[in-house]
Amino acid sequence: MEMGSDEKVGLMSGRFVWVKGLFAKLVEVANKTRALGKDDPRRVIHSLKLGLTLTIVSMLYYYKPLFANFGVSAMWAVITVVVVFEFSVGATLGKGLNRAFATLFAGALGAGAHHLAALSGHVGQPIITSIFVFLLACILTFMRFFPSIKAKYDYGMMIGILTFSFVSISGVGDDEILLLLQKRVSTIFLGVCVCVVISIFISPFWAGQDLHNRIALNIENLALFFEGYGSVEYFKTLQDREAKDDKSIQAYKSILKSSGIEDTLYNFARWEPGHGCFQFRHPWKQYLKIGALTYQCAFRIDALHRNLSSSSFQVSQEIQTQIQEPCMEMSMETGKALRQLVSSIREMTQPTLAEIHTNNSKAAAKKLKASLKSSRLWENCDLLTLIPAANVGTLLVDVVDITEKIAEAVQELASLAHFKAAKPADSAIQSEKEKLEPNIGVSFVTIPISSG
Amino acid sequence: MEMGSDEKVGLMSGRFVWVKGLFAKLVEVANKTRALGKDDPRRVIHSLKLGLTLTIVSMLYYYKPLFANFGVSAMWAVITVVVVFEFSVGATLGKGLNRAFATLFAGALGAGAHHLAALSGHVGQPIITSIFVFLLACILTFMRFFPSIKAKYDYGMMIGILTFSFVSISGVGDDEILLLLQKRVSTIFLGVCVCVVISIFISPFWAGQDLHNRIALNIENLALFFEGYGSVEYFKTLQDREAKDDKSIQAYKSILKSSGIEDTLYNFARWEPGHGCFQFRHPWKQYLKIGALTYQCAFRIDALHRNLSSSSFQVSQEIQTQIQEPCMEMSMETGKALRQLVSSIREMTQPTLAEIHTNNSKAAAKKLKASLKSSRLWENCDLLTLIPAANVGTLLVDVVDITEKIAEAVQELASLAHFKAAKPADSAIQSEKEKLEPNIGVSFVTIPISSG
Repeated sequence: MEMGSDEKVGLMSGRFVWVKGLFAKLVEVANKTRALGKDDPRRVIHSLKLGLTLTIVSMLYYYKPLFANFGVSAMWAVITVVVVFEFSVGATLGKGLNRAFATLFAGALGAGAHHLAALSGHVGQPIITSIFVFLLACILTFMRFFPSIKAKYDYGMMIGILTFSFVSISGVGDDEILLLLQKRVSTIFLGVCVCVVISIFISPFWAGQDLHNRIALNIENLALFFEGYGSVEYFKTLQDREAKDDKSIQAYKSILKSSGIEDTLYNFARWEPGHGCFQFRHPWKQYLKIGALTYQCAFRIDALHRNLSSSSFQVSQEIQTQIQEPCMEMSMETGKALRQLVSSIREMTQPTLAEIHTNNSKAAAKKLKASLKSSRLWENCDLLTLIPAANVGTLLVDVVDITEKIAEAVQELASLAHFKAAKPADSAIQSEKEKLEPNIGVSFVTIPISSG
Repeated sequence: MEMGSDEKVGLMSGRFVWVKGLFAKLVEVANKTRALGKDDPRRVIHSLKLGLTLTIVSMLYYYKPLFANFGVSAMWAVITVVVVFEFSVGATLGKGLNRAFATLFAGALGAGAHHLAALSGHVGQPIITSIFVFLLACILTFMRFFPSIKAKYDYGMMIGILTFSFVSISGVGDDEILLLLQKRVSTIFLGVCVCVVISIFISPFWAGQDLHNRIALNIENLALFFEGYGSVEYFKTLQDREAKDDKSIQAYKSILKSSGIEDTLYNFARWEPGHGCFQFRHPWKQYLKIGALTYQCAFRIDALHRNLSSSSFQVSQEIQTQIQEPCMEMSMETGKALRQLVSSIREMTQPTLAEIHTNNSKAAAKKLKASLKSSRLWENCDLLTLIPAANVGTLLVDVVDITEKIAEAVQELASLAHFKAAKPADSAIQSEKEKLEPNIGVSFVTIPISSG
């Protein structure tokens, strides 16, 4: 059957469409890959590191003297690398230690169980072994539900069940079983060691450092929002605000999106040895406390932003002039206090200057409260138009409270982790700078502040 | 050296203290275990199921005809059970299918690589194989960073690297490698099959059912809060409110705490076949949408609650009488609307009655707005004392908006999942009930409602 020319062209173009579709898909995947690598180049490095580790360990397999010793068990080292090598040092260490020690203990237990079961003869052995396996599997599986065990030893529990079954079931003699166990434990230790060494010594990614940076970044994101707020005039129309504040809005929203990551990083950081500026027993838990506070702060900023961008938010000129100044001042000072905290965390120095700005913003909050109380403000205007503005004010006061708590938590971290004192030169420059800047808040420092 | 009598007693009591401490610790662990089992008895059943599956598969090891066929590879079936058997059917299926198919494809690829490398002779083989392993490990590890792959195929990628290395490195001939591959694939398929069968046919825990129940429970928790709010008089002193509302506060806080679980359940539910009232392609994604809305609602309730329990919240008698009625009405009606949605989800029927209550609460919101606008309210009172009350009002109005969105999302779910029409008998009873109840909101149904 011959095809007409038209049909041929149709089929050809049909084929081309298919090829074109495939090509477009490939380009899309390539773009996504590039974006993923560009977003965090450490991903590429991690992939290369895993490839390298796996190649090194598989080379051992070809190295005869070692292979002769381990035999087929050398494969366990390869498997160990694939399952243990994780992104951060902490995760790799945690999984590696879990795997190594669970194999050791459960293997010994399994050998014991095997010996006991073998005593009961050929008929009894499978039954006794099955009972042992059933009991151990039930107990360890249930233990995985304990939150404290789940956080640190979940993988170890699984490997425990696995190794116990593996050793106790294996239909070999008592002598052989010890040899099997020895091979398994030593290959797994070897695999874990190579993973840990490569993870630590070739471009290490520390979960602790990540946690530290993330907390600083979150506080910086809050600072960005307040600075954007303080510089832009407060009660502008919605369109203007949206355009100008877009960056600062993205900033605080990223905090709300990324909650939960801190907990994961904390669980990994606990496994890590001392590195860089961090001691072995660095107070990682304090970071979770600060993280929770920044989250709460972002939470309230979201409410504030919703209030400002709602269509009902329209404020008369009179209110504007009354409320604007203290609001801007509060924002500016809060932003400055947060900036100080960020640089204190980043440089690991005592946050000495933050307190001044916190006090300034508290003074501004007091002024705002006074403005709201003065009857002059709410004469001759509709309550419904007044409420949103007042609302914004009270929300801001609320936010200032949380900023103070964040400052306290950072202070606590600084003393727990023995941050060094701020360089006198730096603070001198800072105070010089403050004198030069037209800082409306400074005059409030001497005003007595009421707490709460 | 002899000990004095006092020293002996001291040592004895020291020992007893140690024993006592151990005993206290044991009792504590036992109590925790009991609490964990009581909290969700499915945990105990899951542990027993895993023990049973593992025992069944390890029995196969002792069953000579099968063992003769598989040899030592039978151990892979045991290992598969330990790593694949998860709590829910969806998680087990997802992990099992990932493991089985990744082993199949990567194994075939590994055999091909092994064949190619063998062509280059004894010296070239290790080098060529290492290059293959390095490349595949790098590519698959990087692919694990793609969010879409991470959600569904993360485990498969890891098993892919593992099997490819395992097969391509193994220092055996081409014939043997096919046998090895065949054994590995068949034992792993066997393990996965036993896991899936036990997971589905013995007391199955469906992630989809869990997700369905959780969404219904979350909406019920919101309803609880509003009912507690509607029945208790609104502007009572803090102490009274704390005591009475404790349950309803716990309820909405549990929503804020459990965010993120829905995403996990959704990822598992996608793997599950049709079960119970759920078809294979049940619109699970819609549950995430409803979940996000309930989360937002709980978010705002939290702000509302913070406002009410703050020390500055004191309201004059006059405001109370003005605002109280519409606020209570809004809460009551919102609570009723949410209850309707809950029973609609639980019974998988169309939520026909919810709309009436939503409209009622919108009418009440309008009334509240009118109250706030009337100048009579804010004459002769301090603005600062008025703001918190007005704030509570506006927050409530905000919450009513979200409730409406939740109702729409549930309606959408009902049409996507083809929920059956509500039983006429039920709705008749319901409307009877409504006639009997002193429902202050019903009269508002006919009032024209402004949207937004």
